[in-house]
Amino acid sequence: AMTSAQIDKITTMTRDPLLFTPGPLTTSLTVKEAMLHDMGSRDHKFMDAVKDTRDQLLSLAHVSRADGHECIIMQGSGTFGIESVISSAIGPNDTLAVLVNGAYGERIVKMAIVHKLKHHVLRFAEDAIVTAEATTRFLDEHPDITHVACIHSETTTGLFNPVGDVGAVCKSKGKVFIVDAMSSFGGVEMDMKAMHIDYLVSSSNKCIEGVPGFAFILAKRSELEKTKGQARSLSLDLYDQWAGLESNGQFRFTPPTLSIMAFRQALRELDQEGGVAAREARYRENKRILDEGMAALGFKEYLSRDIQGHIITSFLYPEGAWFKFDEFYDRLNALGFVIYPGKLSKANAFRIGNIGQIHPGDVRDLIAAIGDVVKKMSAS
Amino acid sequence: AMTSAQIDKITTMTRDPLLFTPGPLTTSLTVKEAMLHDMGSRDHKFMDAVKDTRDQLLSLAHVSRADGHECIIMQGSGTFGIESVISSAIGPNDTLAVLVNGAYGERIVKMAIVHKLKHHVLRFAEDAIVTAEATTRFLDEHPDITHVACIHSETTTGLFNPVGDVGAVCKSKGKVFIVDAMSSFGGVEMDMKAMHIDYLVSSSNKCIEGVPGFAFILAKRSELEKTKGQARSLSLDLYDQWAGLESNGQFRFTPPTLSIMAFRQALRELDQEGGVAAREARYRENKRILDEGMAALGFKEYLSRDIQGHIITSFLYPEGAWFKFDEFYDRLNALGFVIYPGKLSKANAFRIGNIGQIHPGDVRDLIAAIGDVVKKMSAS
Repeated sequence: AMTSAQIDKITTMTRDPLLFTPGPLTTSLTVKEAMLHDMGSRDHKFMDAVKDTRDQLLSLAHVSRADGHECIIMQGSGTFGIESVISSAIGPNDTLAVLVNGAYGERIVKMAIVHKLKHHVLRFAEDAIVTAEATTRFLDEHPDITHVACIHSETTTGLFNPVGDVGAVCKSKGKVFIVDAMSSFGGVEMDMKAMHIDYLVSSSNKCIEGVPGFAFILAKRSELEKTKGQARSLSLDLYDQWAGLESNGQFRFTPPTLSIMAFRQALRELDQEGGVAAREARYRENKRILDEGMAALGFKEYLSRDIQGHIITSFLYPEGAWFKFDEFYDRLNALGFVIYPGKLSKANAFRIGNIGQIHPGDVRDLIAAIGDVVKKMSAS
Repeated sequence: AMTSAQIDKITTMTRDPLLFTPGPLTTSLTVKEAMLHDMGSRDHKFMDAVKDTRDQLLSLAHVSRADGHECIIMQGSGTFGIESVISSAIGPNDTLAVLVNGAYGERIVKMAIVHKLKHHVLRFAEDAIVTAEATTRFLDEHPDITHVACIHSETTTGLFNPVGDVGAVCKSKGKVFIVDAMSSFGGVEMDMKAMHIDYLVSSSNKCIEGVPGFAFILAKRSELEKTKGQARSLSLDLYDQWAGLESNGQFRFTPPTLSIMAFRQALRELDQEGGVAAREARYRENKRILDEGMAALGFKEYLSRDIQGHIITSFLYPEGAWFKFDEFYDRLNALGFVIYPGKLSKANAFRIGNIGQIHPGDVRDLIAAIGDVVKKMSAS
């Protein structure tokens, strides 16, 4: 309806702060504009969009319905999607192992406790990755384990766990493997079959670059079929949600219609960018510029580089009384850059994400702004 | 950013079908445009919008934090909001009574079963309202009951249950009263205190005329405080969701940022329209025109007029082999009018809603379109 010149003008006039966070992220104007049309939740046009979206998400993970995989969209945040899997897939005779090295792993432990699931927890240090070796030993020590849950990109710190290696261990020992790929899916090449993942969970407002509103679950159909009647809530019943979508293409309960329309546009734009490989390359370049710029300004990364992912980075507070995070945050905000507080249990840090519609030039602008703010704060 | 002439032009060029449904609804362009700006979920600007929204929702129900009430926003559909109350408020020693005369009442029964709550069900016919008399007898027969749940506007049929009368019974007998006002809140004057409601649940995409993405719960604080540690899931933990919002103004898990921004704009527009009273008057006028027009075309309402609400109406399929609902629906759709299938357990009906940005002229246009479609279908 608008010419791109009109759109450019509007964008320039109302440039929003850039979000250097783990999501909700900066998204393209065209993604948001896909929400300007009301949509009936039981209307054909919307149901077609849902079907397309589900199929395309499977293809991003290199799987399909034809090869025995399914995509389920779940209303709510990413956590709702994780809980729908954890509270549906672990049956009364099953035992879950949770591999933990951050707040998102601990969140799955909380779910296991709330739902009174039989479970074991294998904890690693917050600055260390999960290993295949430790997982193997743990599974050998606890033969009752049937399911293993692991975070791919631990947003607490920014590390990447080697889910492919852990998946191979699960496969060899016949365990069901659940991966929380919330902040990484779409921004990191992931092949569900090659990584032996049975359930992969992510959300609308991460690397696909849509807006918040729902989580999605990619599942091996043969596992999904075992979960019938096992769910511990109505809203988060993974099997019933799937069965509802399969029976008539509709959601059991009101879906976030416009978030889904935005997401379908985001999938188109991911494809236009060159798919996951191209997006990963852009994010990696953002990360390279960020690391270089922050190091030049004297900031230290919390993690060692070899386990650090390219989604989000934790930077330690600089030494000196001049640094007050709230002031640092507010000053950057006033310049149009939104960063993210830290979440480490033992160190003071803040986080900077480089996913979303953030391009190398934007990261350079951020570095320049941080340089200015540091100069002003440390001088005063 | 755009002039209103530009907006009018865009609207005219891309006029969307009007949604005569129980929601998601037709919303104003300005409500949807509030989603054109990315928003950090932990940023001050967003947290301020959340605080405003929570306060304003309380005032629509004629209550406030000062008089002991709280508003909690819950990610997901309206059902997620209902389940958060049902699965958090009914403690291990409590017993829930569900008053049922339609599919939404039955849905609460399902929740009670899934969560293994002690509960009793009082069922009425689908075309009859819940009564204070029957409720009184039921409560006397089952002294173990501590909580009572009732639907206000049963979207299955369109009837209004007399929640004020039922609330008075609950009050006199010391029961906690939970009202599902999903499809009516904002379109019907409701005073929580006068109606003796302890928990009132509705959603973003109903009579406030926002877009889907979340439910909201208005709660008496003294009841809410009793629910700590009682929830049966992590995501739908009503107390923790409230405590999270209170502690730092942030959501525990990613909120539907843009749905909330749209909703805040919708609240402004509700105020500009003249508040709930003015909106109720518009909906009632829509309903009057609908009833008159449909009667003139020979359609019969399922419910008797005295129990019918002004939110949505069930019309029986007309007699004659010419009427096929799918064709009727598709023909109206092609003319730009989306209606809604029926949900009755014993009769064939379709539904027409008159909430959302639907004005008397739109209802007249719909009636004219239905007249045309009936003429074409019955002639062929």
